[in-house]
Amino acid sequence: MEQFDFNLERVIKIIKDKDCRKAGLQFPEGLKRQAINVAALLEEKTGTKVIISGNPCFGACDVDLTLAGRVDILFHFGHAKIGEYDNVVFIEARSDIDVTPAVKKALEMLKNDRIGLITTVQHVHKLEEVSLFLRENGKESVIGKGDLRTCYPGQVLGCNFSAARIDCDEYLYIGGGIFHPLGVAIATRKRVIAADPYMNRAVEVAPEKFLRKRSGYIAKAMDAEVFGIIVSSKSGQHRMELALRLREMANKHSKKGYIVLMDLVTPEQLLAFKADAYVNTACPRITIDDAERFHVPVLTPQEFEVVMGEKEWGNAGMDEILEEK
Amino acid sequence: MEQFDFNLERVIKIIKDKDCRKAGLQFPEGLKRQAINVAALLEEKTGTKVIISGNPCFGACDVDLTLAGRVDILFHFGHAKIGEYDNVVFIEARSDIDVTPAVKKALEMLKNDRIGLITTVQHVHKLEEVSLFLRENGKESVIGKGDLRTCYPGQVLGCNFSAARIDCDEYLYIGGGIFHPLGVAIATRKRVIAADPYMNRAVEVAPEKFLRKRSGYIAKAMDAEVFGIIVSSKSGQHRMELALRLREMANKHSKKGYIVLMDLVTPEQLLAFKADAYVNTACPRITIDDAERFHVPVLTPQEFEVVMGEKEWGNAGMDEILEEK
Repeated sequence: MEQFDFNLERVIKIIKDKDCRKAGLQFPEGLKRQAINVAALLEEKTGTKVIISGNPCFGACDVDLTLAGRVDILFHFGHAKIGEYDNVVFIEARSDIDVTPAVKKALEMLKNDRIGLITTVQHVHKLEEVSLFLRENGKESVIGKGDLRTCYPGQVLGCNFSAARIDCDEYLYIGGGIFHPLGVAIATRKRVIAADPYMNRAVEVAPEKFLRKRSGYIAKAMDAEVFGIIVSSKSGQHRMELALRLREMANKHSKKGYIVLMDLVTPEQLLAFKADAYVNTACPRITIDDAERFHVPVLTPQEFEVVMGEKEWGNAGMDEILEEK
Repeated sequence: MEQFDFNLERVIKIIKDKDCRKAGLQFPEGLKRQAINVAALLEEKTGTKVIISGNPCFGACDVDLTLAGRVDILFHFGHAKIGEYDNVVFIEARSDIDVTPAVKKALEMLKNDRIGLITTVQHVHKLEEVSLFLRENGKESVIGKGDLRTCYPGQVLGCNFSAARIDCDEYLYIGGGIFHPLGVAIATRKRVIAADPYMNRAVEVAPEKFLRKRSGYIAKAMDAEVFGIIVSSKSGQHRMELALRLREMANKHSKKGYIVLMDLVTPEQLLAFKADAYVNTACPRITIDDAERFHVPVLTPQEFEVVMGEKEWGNAGMDEILEEK
């Protein structure tokens, strides 16, 4: 079974060194079951009083600032750092799963010589090993640096494919799920092979079906008169300026746009309002992952520009939150 | 159909008088469908830029402070004021529904002469009319003042029955739903007749079945070793001191208590943690209304005291958030 190394010795050392009386713990959904055990260990080893964040958490863009304001130090587990905070320490999760078997399968599917390597933070420490393996098999690998929102070369986020913007012929993605490699394929318009160490398989990403679905939502939103423009209040998802620009754009085209400020964006919550369609400036993954659960079309900012006639069909691309150097 | 009077003329006047450039609107779930229409009207009449709160809202204890921090003024609709804020105006909803037919039915069920009148803020302006009607029919009515958390004589909240702590023989509750009259019956141990103007009927509240169910949860929690102690970060639900006291109590009885700080408390969110049972210091209604949806027992603070042997069975009563004068 996959194990994550949280480096709790480091956490204990920080609490002791800083003499923290109150410590906050924040875990993403998949790791929350460990929260009480980690709290028990830290209280026992350091004497600090722990408060656990019970709020949903899906990324480093979602630091529990309320909890951070109530403790001496907040440990945010599972994600690489996004943003600067006085008293928040990001404790990344590093998976010990062996990626080589899936990469071997991917090797047979690679058609070109210059391969861009991309992954998520859980496997970022394995990229060097993958690079060596490719070289032994006659492939050159390229690893992009990414922008300020990412922490490691080759690291991509669901909202940031900057590390994939490099000179290469095609990509090899290492990790689970299809969202990240799909995003890279759409953002770069190049071929992406996804090597999944959990399923021990490799697949070529096929973005056409996805893009057809998105076109369907764009087409449906063409008749909308009233748009809800969603803005997230989460630490790393707040794009109010973009939202205000989209509202101006709606007005210019004789449509109505209303700014809706939310913490967690859910299909249930949008049901409450009487809008014909929404534009989501919060986490880009919500737009995609929950698409079929929304009662009206929910568009990316770029798709909204297509609806307003300000961008050409087929040029919507992926919504990204970039932090350029 | 029931109409709510929001007194939007007053809202417009406040925006104009204070020359507010940005105004926030917060509606409870049942009124959110009006949000965009109200936003459109206010923007048209005053030129202010509106931001709508998209977060769930179930009471005046739940002011969207994030939104309040981003606007010149926040209008919180539907609830009577709880708490003091620099830039929040509470716009109560007053129902125009006729309560007399249901009160007539209730009259036949009243057994005593001295009747305590209780209601929610939507119908609080009808209490005088009900009082007159009772007097014409040979009944004396008493209306309690309530504590600092309530705004009007006779007004009860789901978490505050202070207005019912008066010298009377039995109670007449006017309003929809069974939660408030049930709470009054349990908190006062007196007979409560509920006159529901929506269903046009009157019923005697029977708390026995409810109390049996709660005893079941108490019994189930007796074997629990690890308790999650839920604290809400919402403006009017934050009871950290109580939570810390309960944690001490758990430790005293060789049990473990871990503080979990949350905004919205949902059964789904508690599923993520490995606790044997929970104590909820957030909104008391959540404990009751969602009881059957929780995967482990979730207790009120008073029920937890029963489990710890610090309170006698049958004395748990209702959990209330009181603000005594």
